[in-house]
Amino acid sequence: MSRVESIVAPVRDSLERMRSVLEAHVRDSSRAVSDMTDHVGRFRGKQLRATLVLLAGDATGNSTDEHPTVAAIVEMIHLATLVHDDVLDGAKVRRRVACVNERWDNQTAVLLGDFLYARAFALSTDLSSRMASRVLAEATRRICVGEIDQAALRYDFEMPESTYERIAGAKTAELYAAACELGARYPGGREDLGRSLREYGHAIGLAFQIVDDCLDVVGKEEVVGKTVGNDVEDGKITLPVLRTYAISDAATRSRMRSVYTEPGLKNRLGALQAVVSLEAGVDYAFERARTLVEGAKARVRVLPPTPARDALIELGDFVLERNF
Amino acid sequence: MSRVESIVAPVRDSLERMRSVLEAHVRDSSRAVSDMTDHVGRFRGKQLRATLVLLAGDATGNSTDEHPTVAAIVEMIHLATLVHDDVLDGAKVRRRVACVNERWDNQTAVLLGDFLYARAFALSTDLSSRMASRVLAEATRRICVGEIDQAALRYDFEMPESTYERIAGAKTAELYAAACELGARYPGGREDLGRSLREYGHAIGLAFQIVDDCLDVVGKEEVVGKTVGNDVEDGKITLPVLRTYAISDAATRSRMRSVYTEPGLKNRLGALQAVVSLEAGVDYAFERARTLVEGAKARVRVLPPTPARDALIELGDFVLERNF
Repeated sequence: MSRVESIVAPVRDSLERMRSVLEAHVRDSSRAVSDMTDHVGRFRGKQLRATLVLLAGDATGNSTDEHPTVAAIVEMIHLATLVHDDVLDGAKVRRRVACVNERWDNQTAVLLGDFLYARAFALSTDLSSRMASRVLAEATRRICVGEIDQAALRYDFEMPESTYERIAGAKTAELYAAACELGARYPGGREDLGRSLREYGHAIGLAFQIVDDCLDVVGKEEVVGKTVGNDVEDGKITLPVLRTYAISDAATRSRMRSVYTEPGLKNRLGALQAVVSLEAGVDYAFERARTLVEGAKARVRVLPPTPARDALIELGDFVLERNF
Repeated sequence: MSRVESIVAPVRDSLERMRSVLEAHVRDSSRAVSDMTDHVGRFRGKQLRATLVLLAGDATGNSTDEHPTVAAIVEMIHLATLVHDDVLDGAKVRRRVACVNERWDNQTAVLLGDFLYARAFALSTDLSSRMASRVLAEATRRICVGEIDQAALRYDFEMPESTYERIAGAKTAELYAAACELGARYPGGREDLGRSLREYGHAIGLAFQIVDDCLDVVGKEEVVGKTVGNDVEDGKITLPVLRTYAISDAATRSRMRSVYTEPGLKNRLGALQAVVSLEAGVDYAFERARTLVEGAKARVRVLPPTPARDALIELGDFVLERNF
């Protein structure tokens, strides 16, 4: 059994129910919309966020019949952010499938993302408790703010690591945190458990983003399954680069800045790798991700021993072992 | 007193409260976000949709303390659609102010629109009744589907007028309909009044879109306050053009198609005006808008006579008398 299979095993049935809800609700009577959502369905990844809702529910003894729907809504919001991210990043390939902005155009990708957000919120208003609508609307707002702040801080090699973590925390970890909080609390369960699982989710999400940022600078496109070097191309200064810059001499720093900003330069990632070794920065970033995962695991280790709790612990290790 | 002043007069105080709620909630602790929402604040138009919530509330005797907040949420959703529309249309100027996509870039405009949607939904989940969240999430979904269908039907000169009306109904009239329904029903008022005011709003919104589509082909940029000719540039076949095409001979039809599709052609609107007179098509479209407005006015004329009811009637005439 692969690591992913073993992580999802405790919630396999509810994950299937989640997928049925998701498939039913991303479709639309409009042929044009359904053509696109069918296409986006092929992006289907590991559905980690939905899995987190369900595992957090089981691990805290809080699962209800509505949990698969809550999980589907979380996955739908994630899909919306992916579609818009691809527009923002100018990406061409996502999980070996052409991005919506590439297959259709940017305009269509914007509309499809909006549709998915709206569908997710509409579905959340049908749930018996308003908690999911509240938590997820607020999470979505924070995600957008994180993305806007990230765009505003492009080319800023001097930002403190805490700023990087605040932004990555908002744009990525927030949805993991919301997924875990809802799993543990929806529709109105114990607040302390909700808080504790939210912190687990936030740490896991931040670790995931840090690993992702490492993949973007040292990963191989054919292994990662999406375009690499986007962050360098877009001027996003991620943790491995921020650290590399911090420990470099003035001449190297100047060359690094040029690689990001020189107009018309092709293959900026290759150019960056040519002016400086990113190894120490990547190691440092990975160490930070490891520390976050250890903290996350400690938060769920106090829960009663169940297959779901153990899967949450294993999921932490999985985040650190994504393929390059 | 101008027509707009006389329309808003019955709800002037609650409109002021709406503006306070709106201003407070589009701001954010993120400086980057607030810089942008300050800029977008300068788009402030006539706030017709918020006015409709408040007038429909007063005209049906259904107004509550929460109506200004509901109205602010509707306005916020409208603002989000404007910001994304400007990306889709590649527009440069909106109400004599540079569009977000022009002042910053497309990426930023996508994120800001997402932020405004999320903020609107988050605010709606704080209301005492879920009705606003439900109606507005569903309205937003329909708006997106309308926009996607419109994109899919670009360059289709053969579509039936009913298809044009279905799309314009979804992308524009839906929010007018939701505004009026919520005004008349929120938080749980009479369903029949909600339905009747929804139909009023839908007809007014559709008439508004038809007039807007006429402005895009025969309006003057300096009077309309935004770029004209966008629809022709983008291949959107609107009612005045659809009608012109329907009543043209084969040679003219062929020239019209060329104007829309010839690669690299500059000033397509000018070229269109050079190959065919749009006058009969515009007259026809206006006649349709007038019929819709008459139907809308009949729906509210049965309400008890109040200043708010009379303003709803006047608003219908106002939609038809926008400046060219």
